[in-house]
Amino acid sequence: MAEIQDESLSEPDPAEGRVAPGAAPRRHRKAHTTQRDLARYAGLFAKRTQVMRSSAMRDLMEITARPEVISLAGGLPDTSTFSPQSFARQMTKIAQESSAEALQYGPTEGFASTKECIRQVMVAEGMDPDPDDIVVTTGGQQAIDLACKALVDPGDVVIAEAPTYPGAVPVFCSYEAETVQVEMDSEGMRVDLLEETLERLAAEGRRPKLIYTVPSFQNPAGVTMSLERRRRLVEVARERELLVLEDNPYGLLRYEGDPLPTLYELDGGDYVLYLGTFSKILSPGLRLGWLCAPPPVLPKIVLGKQASDLCTSTLSQYFVDEFFAEGSWREYVDELCGVYRTRRDAMLESLERHFPPEATWSEPEGGLFLWATLPEFIDTTDLLARALRDNVAFVPGVAAFADGLTGKSSMRLNFSGSTEAEIREGIRRIGSVIAEQMALYGAITREQPSLGGDRAQARGLTPSVGSDPGGDVVPIRRREPEA
Amino acid sequence: MAEIQDESLSEPDPAEGRVAPGAAPRRHRKAHTTQRDLARYAGLFAKRTQVMRSSAMRDLMEITARPEVISLAGGLPDTSTFSPQSFARQMTKIAQESSAEALQYGPTEGFASTKECIRQVMVAEGMDPDPDDIVVTTGGQQAIDLACKALVDPGDVVIAEAPTYPGAVPVFCSYEAETVQVEMDSEGMRVDLLEETLERLAAEGRRPKLIYTVPSFQNPAGVTMSLERRRRLVEVARERELLVLEDNPYGLLRYEGDPLPTLYELDGGDYVLYLGTFSKILSPGLRLGWLCAPPPVLPKIVLGKQASDLCTSTLSQYFVDEFFAEGSWREYVDELCGVYRTRRDAMLESLERHFPPEATWSEPEGGLFLWATLPEFIDTTDLLARALRDNVAFVPGVAAFADGLTGKSSMRLNFSGSTEAEIREGIRRIGSVIAEQMALYGAITREQPSLGGDRAQARGLTPSVGSDPGGDVVPIRRREPEA
Repeated sequence: MAEIQDESLSEPDPAEGRVAPGAAPRRHRKAHTTQRDLARYAGLFAKRTQVMRSSAMRDLMEITARPEVISLAGGLPDTSTFSPQSFARQMTKIAQESSAEALQYGPTEGFASTKECIRQVMVAEGMDPDPDDIVVTTGGQQAIDLACKALVDPGDVVIAEAPTYPGAVPVFCSYEAETVQVEMDSEGMRVDLLEETLERLAAEGRRPKLIYTVPSFQNPAGVTMSLERRRRLVEVARERELLVLEDNPYGLLRYEGDPLPTLYELDGGDYVLYLGTFSKILSPGLRLGWLCAPPPVLPKIVLGKQASDLCTSTLSQYFVDEFFAEGSWREYVDELCGVYRTRRDAMLESLERHFPPEATWSEPEGGLFLWATLPEFIDTTDLLARALRDNVAFVPGVAAFADGLTGKSSMRLNFSGSTEAEIREGIRRIGSVIAEQMALYGAITREQPSLGGDRAQARGLTPSVGSDPGGDVVPIRRREPEA
Repeated sequence: MAEIQDESLSEPDPAEGRVAPGAAPRRHRKAHTTQRDLARYAGLFAKRTQVMRSSAMRDLMEITARPEVISLAGGLPDTSTFSPQSFARQMTKIAQESSAEALQYGPTEGFASTKECIRQVMVAEGMDPDPDDIVVTTGGQQAIDLACKALVDPGDVVIAEAPTYPGAVPVFCSYEAETVQVEMDSEGMRVDLLEETLERLAAEGRRPKLIYTVPSFQNPAGVTMSLERRRRLVEVARERELLVLEDNPYGLLRYEGDPLPTLYELDGGDYVLYLGTFSKILSPGLRLGWLCAPPPVLPKIVLGKQASDLCTSTLSQYFVDEFFAEGSWREYVDELCGVYRTRRDAMLESLERHFPPEATWSEPEGGLFLWATLPEFIDTTDLLARALRDNVAFVPGVAAFADGLTGKSSMRLNFSGSTEAEIREGIRRIGSVIAEQMALYGAITREQPSLGGDRAQARGLTPSVGSDPGGDVVPIRRREPEA
């Protein structure tokens, strides 16, 4: 979106103004906005705007909102699974019983009743927080923002996983942090490499303000941090007195395997800030998340939130309260798990069928995403441009790296926001675009890569490229050779 | 709230932990949190946290939420005037027709349909913005935050009125701005003094990033900027190529007099960023505001919002869309105006009756607030502590000044959030506390100030202290001697 507007700004012809078809003439549209105007304003912008960047998912939203596009790019839960009857029932109850309250301002920290719902979600994952340690936020995104606001000065180091949540990168940028990313493997963040990184930074006299991690069903990699790694990460944080920001939006969306304790539980809430959200277990449109922070940190978070937006939507909090009062929120999460499990399986099957043997991908036990890596010569940003012409979208891997360069042969694929049929068709289209690119590459280099596109076709043409998936990312389990 | 928690942190006795009565024992409550723990964390906090402060209104919210307290402190609209039937009807329609969409993520800029509602509100105030210049924000508060995020570096100057909106002060602090406040009189910001200030700053090589103003029914002073001043302010901004942030939450809440053009209209949207909100004309619990920004600025605002909270509540936007689709939003605003006019009149009458003759106050033509100034020897922060014992609250004047010192004999009084009876009783109680303080002062200094409390009593005892209301604030119209 930003890019699109920047382009329009360099357009000097007034006749080219972005007036919607059929719209009345706009008085305030600055048709005369030119480079000169831009230069005039430029001196006023804050320094942070020079490094602020857009998250790829957001840029893609406008394009992928077109009904003909199959978007595997977003992180959209399937909100059509939520019962409209239940929605209407809860809202009618709120209107009848507490209309004035639901439309009024609320406390900055959030309502006690909503914190009790949050406590229930956290108890379901093995934690037992004190409601006084919780602040209700405007989605999980704001929780990341507020943690940085309390902790990060320009030039400070933030540690993140490689790859990391594409929506976190713009936050770290907006606080002018230096994001240092630590490789993952199938057990999550390589804590040994984290320690090496911390040693290196310590030698430079630098101490990271925050270690940001999504330990369960990581976005975008789809991997889950092992219990051993979790224990070690918490130990490292305690030994070095470093704060960890545990981002856990998907913890309850597990489709197989046994739940693992959260870092927050293992740590007891001394060094771990815990971020949760209703976005993936109920609705992202409510913009309702939360942050649990140790008592010395929490007041800074609350002050930051006060300045940011005074309080979180009262209407959204009342809605969650009513929904939880009905007592069936776990059943809804179970229902979601059933739907997403099937979709994940459909995606994994389709990848087997339509991606070339050189490709690798993670096989997540839960969450919304998997991460696929293609042969090094394929740039997924170019691939996306081509794929959009075939009305299918994904997030290019570079979006998950602060340098905007690493991960260029990888992609994030979402399986929660599309139907099984859409997933199968979407992966087929991407596979066919990959095949086209590989054939092109083969023609140019006179090598003979797999034709991809259809596994049956590809089989036997080119062997898998071996055990090195490319270095920049470490996903994950390699696909087993077909039996 | 922050202060309360900070106090609890210095509490070394584990038995004193803030465990709610009857609550289960909390695993994560750090009963052992001591000064040592605080010191350990302190090194991790961002520099901005050293200057971040709480807004007085927010601190008061917890206390004033007690039902026995008459709060003239908040900025609460009377949401009980909104029809619960209308609420239920709109929500049921949303549930039936677009449940999945209303629960889903939306675009960062906001929905086109919501921007059309915003356009209607702005048209009602004489503007005609291009929807592409609008970003829907999480309340008006976020619009201030995002403007600063795009424009303000640490040490930058922000100009504000003296007094200014108490909720803006924490935002300017959080961006480590230097807030320079320009005096007002009954015609709003003294633009001549603004120009002097700009000259002085220019001599120091400094150029303000933003001139923040609430031109209509200013919060907290209750004054409205005259047309001449508006024209001159826009000229000054254009001459010096400075950006103005026009905060106009109350423009449509006019109870007498003729509407004036907004700065945005006068300027044409080149140098004026315009902030509006549904908080005061519909509901603050929706957290729905907006910012109109010139095309070069808007993309920076959108990037900032993306990092802050991805997008504004979809549910809230759908609610506004439905409400506006019913076509009677102006009628509701008219109804609000009727209610608030009566309450304003009740407050003005009560002030006449219960405040001492030495007191002055503004007589706002609209909005939610008036500003009262007491004799210099009364500190309204002390007065508030005493008033709270009588279960009545107001905002002490210092909250409206970035230095936290000026305005110490003034107070902001809200007349929208309480019934007429509550307003009369609240002002009576405050008047009686003032009288007590004045009598005490008289006893100490052996002077004979007015006994206050009841105008009939006070009459003739001490003449009004003359025409100088105290210097720090310039409110506004002095009360006329009784006929």
